[in-house]
Amino acid sequence: MHILITGAAGMLGRKLAERVARDGGLGGQPVTAMTLIDVVAPTAPDGVAGTATCLDLDLAAPDTATRLIDARPDVIFHLAAIVSGEAEADFAKGYAINLDSTRALFEAIRLAGADYHPRVVFASSIAVVGAPLPDAIPDDFHTTPLTSYGTQKAICELLLSDYTRRGFFDGIGIRLPTICIRPGLPNKAASGFFSNILREPLVGQPAILPVPDTIRHWHTSPRSAVGFMIHAATMDLTAVGPRRNLSMPGLSATVADQIEALRRVAGDEAVALIRREPDAAITAMCEGWAPGFQATRARALGFTAEDSFDAIIRAHIDDELGGRL
Amino acid sequence: MHILITGAAGMLGRKLAERVARDGGLGGQPVTAMTLIDVVAPTAPDGVAGTATCLDLDLAAPDTATRLIDARPDVIFHLAAIVSGEAEADFAKGYAINLDSTRALFEAIRLAGADYHPRVVFASSIAVVGAPLPDAIPDDFHTTPLTSYGTQKAICELLLSDYTRRGFFDGIGIRLPTICIRPGLPNKAASGFFSNILREPLVGQPAILPVPDTIRHWHTSPRSAVGFMIHAATMDLTAVGPRRNLSMPGLSATVADQIEALRRVAGDEAVALIRREPDAAITAMCEGWAPGFQATRARALGFTAEDSFDAIIRAHIDDELGGRL
Repeated sequence: MHILITGAAGMLGRKLAERVARDGGLGGQPVTAMTLIDVVAPTAPDGVAGTATCLDLDLAAPDTATRLIDARPDVIFHLAAIVSGEAEADFAKGYAINLDSTRALFEAIRLAGADYHPRVVFASSIAVVGAPLPDAIPDDFHTTPLTSYGTQKAICELLLSDYTRRGFFDGIGIRLPTICIRPGLPNKAASGFFSNILREPLVGQPAILPVPDTIRHWHTSPRSAVGFMIHAATMDLTAVGPRRNLSMPGLSATVADQIEALRRVAGDEAVALIRREPDAAITAMCEGWAPGFQATRARALGFTAEDSFDAIIRAHIDDELGGRL
Repeated sequence: MHILITGAAGMLGRKLAERVARDGGLGGQPVTAMTLIDVVAPTAPDGVAGTATCLDLDLAAPDTATRLIDARPDVIFHLAAIVSGEAEADFAKGYAINLDSTRALFEAIRLAGADYHPRVVFASSIAVVGAPLPDAIPDDFHTTPLTSYGTQKAICELLLSDYTRRGFFDGIGIRLPTICIRPGLPNKAASGFFSNILREPLVGQPAILPVPDTIRHWHTSPRSAVGFMIHAATMDLTAVGPRRNLSMPGLSATVADQIEALRRVAGDEAVALIRREPDAAITAMCEGWAPGFQATRARALGFTAEDSFDAIIRAHIDDELGGRL
């Protein structure tokens, strides 16, 4: 089996490649070739069985998609995207990377002919919905995004369904919750604090909380996000039917819930490292974000996620801190 | 005021141009210039005040959109599209005409600069929703189209909302019901019989009914569809908010309702001209179509349509048959 991962230098792409290498295959089948691409060359994970090809390629450039599809990957994980803030700051770039690159990839598959029918796992986002939002957003909630990023993801979802319906590939769109705890350095994304206020205190560092404790949001761990991708690549898709884009399970939690879980796992001294610096702009943005999803269909189809923030924090300690505080 | 109509040689475009010419303006403002384009040259309506420019242009061709936008039309009615059957038969052409042309038009407006902010009225379709469907589809029903045409319209709706949100133009998407009674010759569109079974008997001609009398669908007259376009072009859009695509009002009626209205307006002899020739394929397609919409938002915003099939038939008699049977 040959798998292709776009956006493979990103956090999720890297962890997905590592998981496939560690598992030695996908769905019980050995992975004989892995193609990893990104705008900066990805790194092959340790322990890959078979060939690993790491390429710095811009999927928005002409012929990149055709070249990748010429190798006939069996499973394509399409994770490449620019993030919400950048898509909002640079309108043309957002559409070029997040929409046109996806369409180029889908078109390359279609034009490869009727004897090629890969599975395509697309990383979509909860940004496809827009406020006003109910506390538990149903699976059939309409997509009225309030960002260009969310618009681009919603358009790609529609394309994925149509290309699947027409028989060009077998697609599934995975609406990822906000991923928490993101490893690495604190970043300036507006949503970064959700991770910062846990990750930094866990290693004795201070962190800034710019919003009230009452802000509620929808989270999953990097480990669960990788699990969604693996399950999407290996499950029987006939059970999904024509509505191919699924809101993933996750954990609806307030900032207060996060902090209390940190206290239970790492004690009062960790919590004391969180410094409140209210930021009205970030707070206003948060209030428009999804507080939670029902994710009924995805759960019934076997997707699973953590059911407490304690479990999310422990997954981070296991996966990023060698299992110890 | 300068108005641009794309798809102006089509039934709706032609009637819209005629209405504007007859009204002598739009929203109380004189129309000093009218640009009408289509892939075949449209005809200028009688009685146009100001200049009428009729052009055979392919909006999918490079630079067409830029050339049209160089003239800075104040109101753009974007009706150009290929129909559902053709978009399904020719996948690439459907995306080229129904998606890429729309995006080219939107991009030309964006790139014209910040001092240009036209109103854009986009003809969307009830095909943006897909079965299973409730009898009265709510305004916030999710868009899961089951045709490439519906997918293309749903994508254009998303683009329209995003370009509006970003301030590039002031857009509104009008989800048109099936238009009944379509004037002209019987056509082979799967939905054509809804019009054929009324239009033909009204002039003493036979018509074929391929589906059971119990089939329920969502209709509006050509006159009301033109009315939606005029209202969309002239209303205060601040009341619409960020959700810019509206399911229009219409009439939810069964084929039996249509036939009984025909009987009331034109008598038993007209009804006797309808010949039942059941077609399983057309019936199966109909069963996937929208039976009706709530259209709560559109009604509250002042859009109106017929509330009986008698009224729809009488509008046809007035507008197409000189007011007499």
